[in-house]
Amino acid sequence: MKRRSVLASLAASAAGGRAAAQEARQLGAGRRAYGGRSPEVHATRFFGDSPTPGTGASRTPLQDTVGVITPSSLHFERHHSGVPRIEAARHELLVHGLAGRSVAFSMEDLRRLPSVSRVHFIECAGNSGREHAGNPGETAQKSHGLVSGSEWTGVRLSTLLRIAGVQGQAQWVVAEGADAARHSRSIPIAKAMDDVIVAYAQNGEPVRPEQGYPLRLVVPGWEGNVHVKWLHRLQLTAGPAMSRDEAASYTDLMPDGRAWQFSFEMDVKSVILRPSGGHALSGPGFHEISGIAWSGRGRVKRVDVSVDGGRTWQPAALQPPVLDRSLTRFTLPWAWDGRDTWIMSRATDETGDEQPTRDRIVAMRGTRPGPDGFNHYNGIKAWHVTSGGQVTHV
Amino acid sequence: MKRRSVLASLAASAAGGRAAAQEARQLGAGRRAYGGRSPEVHATRFFGDSPTPGTGASRTPLQDTVGVITPSSLHFERHHSGVPRIEAARHELLVHGLAGRSVAFSMEDLRRLPSVSRVHFIECAGNSGREHAGNPGETAQKSHGLVSGSEWTGVRLSTLLRIAGVQGQAQWVVAEGADAARHSRSIPIAKAMDDVIVAYAQNGEPVRPEQGYPLRLVVPGWEGNVHVKWLHRLQLTAGPAMSRDEAASYTDLMPDGRAWQFSFEMDVKSVILRPSGGHALSGPGFHEISGIAWSGRGRVKRVDVSVDGGRTWQPAALQPPVLDRSLTRFTLPWAWDGRDTWIMSRATDETGDEQPTRDRIVAMRGTRPGPDGFNHYNGIKAWHVTSGGQVTHV
Repeated sequence: MKRRSVLASLAASAAGGRAAAQEARQLGAGRRAYGGRSPEVHATRFFGDSPTPGTGASRTPLQDTVGVITPSSLHFERHHSGVPRIEAARHELLVHGLAGRSVAFSMEDLRRLPSVSRVHFIECAGNSGREHAGNPGETAQKSHGLVSGSEWTGVRLSTLLRIAGVQGQAQWVVAEGADAARHSRSIPIAKAMDDVIVAYAQNGEPVRPEQGYPLRLVVPGWEGNVHVKWLHRLQLTAGPAMSRDEAASYTDLMPDGRAWQFSFEMDVKSVILRPSGGHALSGPGFHEISGIAWSGRGRVKRVDVSVDGGRTWQPAALQPPVLDRSLTRFTLPWAWDGRDTWIMSRATDETGDEQPTRDRIVAMRGTRPGPDGFNHYNGIKAWHVTSGGQVTHV
Repeated sequence: MKRRSVLASLAASAAGGRAAAQEARQLGAGRRAYGGRSPEVHATRFFGDSPTPGTGASRTPLQDTVGVITPSSLHFERHHSGVPRIEAARHELLVHGLAGRSVAFSMEDLRRLPSVSRVHFIECAGNSGREHAGNPGETAQKSHGLVSGSEWTGVRLSTLLRIAGVQGQAQWVVAEGADAARHSRSIPIAKAMDDVIVAYAQNGEPVRPEQGYPLRLVVPGWEGNVHVKWLHRLQLTAGPAMSRDEAASYTDLMPDGRAWQFSFEMDVKSVILRPSGGHALSGPGFHEISGIAWSGRGRVKRVDVSVDGGRTWQPAALQPPVLDRSLTRFTLPWAWDGRDTWIMSRATDETGDEQPTRDRIVAMRGTRPGPDGFNHYNGIKAWHVTSGGQVTHV
């Protein structure tokens, strides 16, 4: 849209003068030591009932979020054996194996060391599995809610490994959590020495319990389960541990029966969040389309949006900051003519990877989503806008 | 420090093997719709007792924060008549005065419009007034806790003014809040059309009540009180309103008795947060020095740190992202020799402005802090590290 027509449409949309003004007439509430949301705000993580609540997931209400930082209280969860209660004062991180020497770091040791803060997304390998299976979620929360963005702060893993010393034959680092499942994943030494963070803080405060308090591994761009929570052990090894979590779970079953293993990087992906399933457009006229894009391989380079079911595409604006392996917010001005249509987004990252259609993914990988099939679904997502303004899944 | 000596110092510092390992032996806690902090984490905003709790301030526990995003629950507060309870569904923002027409925007209208997200600091004009007066705060929270950083999301003010239309003689915009005090400030039209945001969200969720729910003006780089909370009215005018908040309060009394008015921009400033007053170093050896710097005039260009009471200075590293009028995190590796010393930081912004000493400020402005004297204190802050490792204010 040209600026003139956007403004004309905006002016037509702003209705004005509906409700009586609200003005306080008396002294309001006082200060609080630790603030909370307005009682009018109700966005919550979604999860179904389960007889084993510790093994499930909860999903971020993406359709209610803005920007690229997910409120910590709404960051998605994925537990294999619940959230353990760990005392930071007694917690230690042991680095051992093919090291120069074994070192146990207390939390106080870690806080003394050189720190980094980085904004990164974490996405569960199984996110959007229902899309893959052809049983899509009704809302962005249900279809894509296993991705969230945070500012993570901690120590570079490379710093800890250099302190312990890395023997020549050490090619992998096995990271283990202190949860009852001892969730563990193996990471190639090249990645470990590159950009991995042993994070003690998220969005400016200590990592939340369900995100790994007091310590979480943050492995930029890689699937969520490698970001080991409640981290208490790092073992330098010659080969991968072939732990249950990387041998039985979190492999990708191909149509020919073979499993694709160590598919760490999350592919380029995007989803429109506003409007999205469950929203209702108040009428024709101007509506901003807004969504998020991300890639495990680097920065998002561009996002194209179609408002006519994929017939034509327009480049969306990327809101700064556009950061490496971070959620990136895109927007497109849209003057809706009131007619039934489909809207969708397609992201491209700085390596040139482009988000594929579901058809292309199904042709390559079949239709069984993980854990007994394929994870890493990143197909283009469409929402149906009906002539009445209802937005539904496709 | 050279890399070799840092690592040697780190290795010496990591003690290892103190406490018994903690490992969960049973299923942990389940998922939660809206998460919270670990019960072990106790950082809170600070405020003293007051017979009029709505008129005071609460301060961010800066010494416990990391990165550049302040948790919304810990963002500083400053109220003139308490936190009004406002229903978003009934809230309207009226744009009127020297406009083409009056327009009342509902929250739904605003959410349809083109949005922006920006990371910015907000600092109260009176922050560090005690430093100015020569009665410094014992902790970073008490000395500098009226500054916080957030990702703000909303509509550009210029978009709203363009929709309403701006008459040629309109040179100011008067922004008024719906609190009982009707807090109001006048903003020159050039700033209003530049980068001001009418924000409905903070850190990914609706603006918190004490930050202006449902609507706050965000005026990048300018003193906190111009970021009008509970925003309900914007009046285009030929001159400033000379409201109580800009005529009686928030002016800067000079030594000669004249008041300096409309001192909007916050000057370049920094403070070391770790270690800072109230911290105790566990012993000689490696300790990272970490702090925040910011400027109302643009990006922070450099921060120099002295660990010998100002005799010598070393450039600190700036952690990316280094954003325009955002808190910027700086760090410096430090091998403490265990001796009594003073540590301090000095920031320079991209316009070349350098943080002054307190002596220079006092020579220029006298020693009376606002509201009956001078706001905008930005002097270099020193912390005293005793040979026992106690860190105290100077």
